[in-house]
Amino acid sequence: MNTNFLKACKGEEVSHTPIWIMRQAGRYLPDYHKVRGKVTFLELCKTPELAAEVTLQPVDILGVDAAILFSDILVVLDAMGMPLEFREKQGPVLPAPIRSKEDVDKLIVPDPVDKLGYVMDTIQILRRELVDKVPLIGFSGAPFTLATYMVEGGSSKNFFQTKKMMYSAPEVYGAMLDKVTECTISYLQAQVEAGAQALQVFDSWAGALAPCDFAEFALPYVKKIMDALKPAGVPLIYFANNGATLMNLSKTCGADVQGLDWRVNLADAIKVFGPAISVQGNLDPCALLLPEDKLEKRIAGILEEGKAARGHIFNLGHGILPETPPEKAKFVVDTVHRLSSR
Amino acid sequence: MNTNFLKACKGEEVSHTPIWIMRQAGRYLPDYHKVRGKVTFLELCKTPELAAEVTLQPVDILGVDAAILFSDILVVLDAMGMPLEFREKQGPVLPAPIRSKEDVDKLIVPDPVDKLGYVMDTIQILRRELVDKVPLIGFSGAPFTLATYMVEGGSSKNFFQTKKMMYSAPEVYGAMLDKVTECTISYLQAQVEAGAQALQVFDSWAGALAPCDFAEFALPYVKKIMDALKPAGVPLIYFANNGATLMNLSKTCGADVQGLDWRVNLADAIKVFGPAISVQGNLDPCALLLPEDKLEKRIAGILEEGKAARGHIFNLGHGILPETPPEKAKFVVDTVHRLSSR
Repeated sequence: MNTNFLKACKGEEVSHTPIWIMRQAGRYLPDYHKVRGKVTFLELCKTPELAAEVTLQPVDILGVDAAILFSDILVVLDAMGMPLEFREKQGPVLPAPIRSKEDVDKLIVPDPVDKLGYVMDTIQILRRELVDKVPLIGFSGAPFTLATYMVEGGSSKNFFQTKKMMYSAPEVYGAMLDKVTECTISYLQAQVEAGAQALQVFDSWAGALAPCDFAEFALPYVKKIMDALKPAGVPLIYFANNGATLMNLSKTCGADVQGLDWRVNLADAIKVFGPAISVQGNLDPCALLLPEDKLEKRIAGILEEGKAARGHIFNLGHGILPETPPEKAKFVVDTVHRLSSR
Repeated sequence: MNTNFLKACKGEEVSHTPIWIMRQAGRYLPDYHKVRGKVTFLELCKTPELAAEVTLQPVDILGVDAAILFSDILVVLDAMGMPLEFREKQGPVLPAPIRSKEDVDKLIVPDPVDKLGYVMDTIQILRRELVDKVPLIGFSGAPFTLATYMVEGGSSKNFFQTKKMMYSAPEVYGAMLDKVTECTISYLQAQVEAGAQALQVFDSWAGALAPCDFAEFALPYVKKIMDALKPAGVPLIYFANNGATLMNLSKTCGADVQGLDWRVNLADAIKVFGPAISVQGNLDPCALLLPEDKLEKRIAGILEEGKAARGHIFNLGHGILPETPPEKAKFVVDTVHRLSSR
């Protein structure tokens, strides 16, 4: 078993810098399309055999150092009683968004094993399949990010409805965050019990917040999750996307690893996070369009900067783009391994 | 004439902190809709009497300390020979995007007075109308931001086509940037000759770039513009939206004032920019949804932080949202004036 990923999370010595890729099981892979062509996106998430199959694809095809459960951050909202659809080209749609205290009260706090059992089943299949290979990462959305979908009913440009509720009805907004935090904690605990060996919390929309709002409406709930999961003993990763101005705050959340998007200079970020936190990132997904010599130079630069961190897990600064040639993804994995072998 | 805005740009003493608001002439104002209802968006830009009328509205209604020419950063592309449409709900569309050296070669380098005469006419009307009131700001897009529209053919999420050209055909991309920079310089020079008393260069999409790409594909062209306009003697403002990680680079561009989005802590930014640059910003546009007492507290915080700068011009961290009640915008202007009077 290749445990470099787990070691880097804890700042232990590794034989090479581990790499995995956000959305590594996804649309850039023809093998993924073959499976996805048979079912809807949500059916794929809810069918353990198929979800496990696409989770394993990049482990075999690319040789990454960790697998990440194939799922979506929004399935927990489905389990909380919010109707959820994935529409082609439009992305996720929640046709009954949360706009009032009554809406919040109606949300269920589910037993995750009962309502999200398909996730736990997927994890169990994966642990059997991965036994001699690489560790398995489980994940969830962060409360603020989940709340944006709950309030907006989908993706958003300005997060107008979210901030409107945040500012004009902070008690309703807070009650919603409390509820989604509670569900997220039990969901992540269930993932660890099922076999997840590390957890990543995705705060995809954190970058929409001014630092003062992040401190009030996002960070405390992330902290609650990290505090509750700490006893589970698995590495905890927090990824605040577009969060350059939030690093001084997010470093206090309690995560073992901070994920970074490509806008940040890795060396600067490591100075902010200090010697007790590992980092993960942060190649621009579009850099996979570069010719190989220039791409290698950029990878080498990130690896060099990463040496200053307690531990460094190589990743992209955001999800891999559907337009990426799979051989370029493989080139990145091979190059990281080759350049960092010790 | 209230010259506080021009004084703050240069770091001179002011009687109160000046304020203007990005998109202050726009959709949140019923008076704007009355004018806009008669014509298309592009017709409004191209009809000097109407463009001047909407430019003046926020000066009279809100009491802001500067007017900004009503126009769009993309009209220069229209003048360069690229068909341009503004579609309801979809925003700008350029149906013939630039994808090759041949496309770049076909672009015209227009005489701005000839091809964009309507802008100069608007400026001349405005200077007459504003003579006893406030200064007039002219503007353009920054070359990288204009280039994203030229390549993508509209707005974009990942800037995939832009980065594809940037990485795989840097000589074509560079030729396009050179050409759009040349046009922008003569366009801004013509604005000053017509009467613009300050200039803002909007780099709306700068935040899509990793620092190394910003240094190579955006900053040098902004510097060229600032160098060329410096002799014109008017204050130069650069606004790199979502540019927190680019501040160490953007501070070298030669602008007198750096505009800041709301993600940045103003005090931190002032430390980076140092004592020779004024700052502009940076209230979250969504903060105008706050109740007045909380909104005032947030305004006071920004004013307090702004005191450390050579000069501070209050503004929002991004364009005012169409959903904003005009009386809240007026409240912001009045509060900035009241709290900062000396």
